[in-house]
Amino acid sequence: MEGIGARALAASRIMNRLGQTDKNRGLLAVAEALVAREEELKTANAEDVKAAVAEGMKESLVDRLTLTDQRIEGMAEGIRQVAKLDDPIGDVIYMKTRPNGLQIGQKRVPLGVVGIIYESRPNVTGDAFALCFKTGNATILRGGRDAIRSNKAIASVIREALASENLPADALILVEDTSHEIAREMMCLKQYIDVLIPRGGAGLIKTVAENSTIPVIETGTGNCHIFVDESADMSMVAPIIVNAKTQRYGVCNACESLVVHSAIAAKAIPVICDALTEKGVEIRGDERARAIDSRIVPASEEDWGTEYLDAIISLKTVDSIDEAIEHINRYNTKHSESILTQDYENALKFQNEIDAAAVYVNASTRFTDGFEFGFGAEIGISTQKLHARGPMGLLALTTTKYIINGHGQVRP
Amino acid sequence: MEGIGARALAASRIMNRLGQTDKNRGLLAVAEALVAREEELKTANAEDVKAAVAEGMKESLVDRLTLTDQRIEGMAEGIRQVAKLDDPIGDVIYMKTRPNGLQIGQKRVPLGVVGIIYESRPNVTGDAFALCFKTGNATILRGGRDAIRSNKAIASVIREALASENLPADALILVEDTSHEIAREMMCLKQYIDVLIPRGGAGLIKTVAENSTIPVIETGTGNCHIFVDESADMSMVAPIIVNAKTQRYGVCNACESLVVHSAIAAKAIPVICDALTEKGVEIRGDERARAIDSRIVPASEEDWGTEYLDAIISLKTVDSIDEAIEHINRYNTKHSESILTQDYENALKFQNEIDAAAVYVNASTRFTDGFEFGFGAEIGISTQKLHARGPMGLLALTTTKYIINGHGQVRP
Repeated sequence: MEGIGARALAASRIMNRLGQTDKNRGLLAVAEALVAREEELKTANAEDVKAAVAEGMKESLVDRLTLTDQRIEGMAEGIRQVAKLDDPIGDVIYMKTRPNGLQIGQKRVPLGVVGIIYESRPNVTGDAFALCFKTGNATILRGGRDAIRSNKAIASVIREALASENLPADALILVEDTSHEIAREMMCLKQYIDVLIPRGGAGLIKTVAENSTIPVIETGTGNCHIFVDESADMSMVAPIIVNAKTQRYGVCNACESLVVHSAIAAKAIPVICDALTEKGVEIRGDERARAIDSRIVPASEEDWGTEYLDAIISLKTVDSIDEAIEHINRYNTKHSESILTQDYENALKFQNEIDAAAVYVNASTRFTDGFEFGFGAEIGISTQKLHARGPMGLLALTTTKYIINGHGQVRP
Repeated sequence: MEGIGARALAASRIMNRLGQTDKNRGLLAVAEALVAREEELKTANAEDVKAAVAEGMKESLVDRLTLTDQRIEGMAEGIRQVAKLDDPIGDVIYMKTRPNGLQIGQKRVPLGVVGIIYESRPNVTGDAFALCFKTGNATILRGGRDAIRSNKAIASVIREALASENLPADALILVEDTSHEIAREMMCLKQYIDVLIPRGGAGLIKTVAENSTIPVIETGTGNCHIFVDESADMSMVAPIIVNAKTQRYGVCNACESLVVHSAIAAKAIPVICDALTEKGVEIRGDERARAIDSRIVPASEEDWGTEYLDAIISLKTVDSIDEAIEHINRYNTKHSESILTQDYENALKFQNEIDAAAVYVNASTRFTDGFEFGFGAEIGISTQKLHARGPMGLLALTTTKYIINGHGQVRP
């Protein structure tokens, strides 16, 4: 791993000197090469899929693992889109002149070397590379064992395309050893890697956060709530809840938990139950909710803190907005929370007091996403408070540097 | 520690709801109380000093530990200055309306609970509290054993002043147990503490960075370089180097290492040696430098990477700016670096290619400081790239939250 770290660091120094034109030329060459070498990629991927099926992998996971022409073209198109985005590198955010004549400016620069540890989806290889490359970083990728043949094929296509454009192939290095020991070693390569981003399930993220000596950006777990306040517009209740819960079950911005004000419960709960049971969603609620609608099954304490990622939702009744806020701040994962209300003070109060990356009034939690937020790209959704919070676009892959222009100044 | 964490979290929820007026009122009350209860503080401090002297503490450290009337008034004045600063909390950095009518804004909010682990200087207790309180955070402080009686006295004055103003006393909690076990426990209180800032020597910072499961902001080590380029204005060379090396030896932005272009070495090195030896600084250099001036003693490989914090400096000769940049990027701690040059291209090249928080042209590295940069306050100087880089003022103690105003929008 030391050797890989040193190569990535050397590539990052070259990347730091590249301008937009060179970086975009590299991205377009990579996109073209991925499509041109589709057959190779599919052949490598077929071996991964065969091995996965032989080992009894769940069908939904096999689907995520599979590369089709459409998915390869999608990956290439994503890279072309990244090439079109504004390059934030080199922007001087501000520059001021101090009383002593020193000009002090803050300039946006690449992070340096970004490490990404991810699970099975091989198209992450292309996406993650594109965002890091656009922002002038070198990237070390460590994917899962299941997708190793696909990842190797994608990485060599990318590296060869870069080399053919006289750009540093080591801007992307795939760690080919998928053992846990190597992952642990990577998490301690602090002298070479500037930030580590785990992408995958809660278990992976926890392991990386606990074992890394490199700063980590945690992404992705979402126990998201919708609070139906007593003044909620009833015409919004079912559409927003159905969208937030059922549009996609396996995503981190899906709603996992409802909180309903007791003053609207008798009216709202049957409407919610009608809409969700029609979609096949199981509702687990407290006693008061069950007394209103018998389709609700009993919730345990554990349910309040569970991210189901499935056709299940919890439902808690409360007597005030303060109780709702307390409940949500206690059980949420600081991702996305929404209030349905027509009350001005409650809308502001909820947005001020809920501790989460994204706090909505009268909208679905499903909008927490780099594309929906207008960033044009997304490397993940940060649920931590340092560096980046919420959907992370290109800016999250940059840092700043102070540049100071003097004329011989010394400190008095 | 669990109990302390829960109390701090509860206080942070209240802090989050306070406006500027309340926070400033608290700060002014604390400043007043510190001065009014000066005698108590000095009595407690005298016991710390007595114990330290009995244990044979170095005189310079005893000096740092000692509280005088002047230092207590300085601490109070610092807190009053913080009260005068602009409050960044609540600022909406931007708000845009998306094509679907959703208003998406990014709002500045407190981090929540800030943990600070620090060494002997008791006045850090007041400074750190003031910056965290101003930004709406609750603070858990864990100071060193040597200053425990002083810290306890300062913390109770602060807590009582807050309580007397009907503000949450738990906005500041001092951990009174100074054992290593408690510090380790604190580093893992992830469910309560949002960020950990170690303040002190390199050993402390390393221990925290390696053992914490909470995100850490690393501060403070500085192996800072000055590169004397071949086109340097000779009239700046000695003044800037003397200022950067000798104004204060024990600070992280002091210059520890010189790099001199061989084309100017014969002219510059004797001037540098004259100026530094007059101040009693030992110069450790490579063979080429020693051949020019016999006052230079031999440098070992280890010298290039050493932060002396003392009247010693290393000196390396190079044949090009590229060699200088490579040397500096290899041995620096990413803190502050300066080039002395009259060459336009080299000035830009150095600022672009040096990897450090602050990169100077023709100025002393001693300016890397929150006050010198115009922030009006400083919680430390970050040498990492995530979240905050360089001098950290109030903004480094904040995070952001997306607030989204909808009218029933669902994701298509």
